[in-house]
Amino acid sequence: MFVILVYDFEQKRVGRALKTCRKYLTWVQNSVFEGEIGEANLKKLKMELNKLMDKSTDSVIIYSFQSTKYSKREVLGVSKNSQEFIL
Amino acid sequence: MFVILVYDFEQKRVGRALKTCRKYLTWVQNSVFEGEIGEANLKKLKMELNKLMDKSTDSVIIYSFQSTKYSKREVLGVSKNSQEFIL
Repeated sequence: MFVILVYDFEQKRVGRALKTCRKYLTWVQNSVFEGEIGEANLKKLKMELNKLMDKSTDSVIIYSFQSTKYSKREVLGVSKNSQEFIL
Repeated sequence: MFVILVYDFEQKRVGRALKTCRKYLTWVQNSVFEGEIGEANLKKLKMELNKLMDKSTDSVIIYSFQSTKYSKREVLGVSKNSQEFIL
């Protein structure tokens, strides 16, 4: 499935959050990741983030899409990650 | 259609970007907006952001989905915007 993940971590944990997300998804912009990921890996990513975060201050939103049909991805201005994208 | 918008603006323009996006979408997290929006309003939002941004440093990514069938929205940790969401 295709996933968009956005997070908002306190400064002292954001480095580890970045490292964790980068193992599974592509960094596209400040605190934004995206990519194709399987159910098992998404489960692992969520477990690692849950362990790492302070649930009273940190926030992660995960949008998952079984299909990317009828969807579009558009960039205005500079593309912070020059990689080609599948959407 | 359902839209997720993420931006990365230089400090001096981020206030105006926030104000502009809030006219059309719901703020959900630091530099992340989402919501249902029509074609005409999306066009207006893009025009306003294009006018406001410095295209060599600022970045906006707009993911648009004609259908939110087979999709899911999940929050880990604190939900920065307590509003209920349609996804």
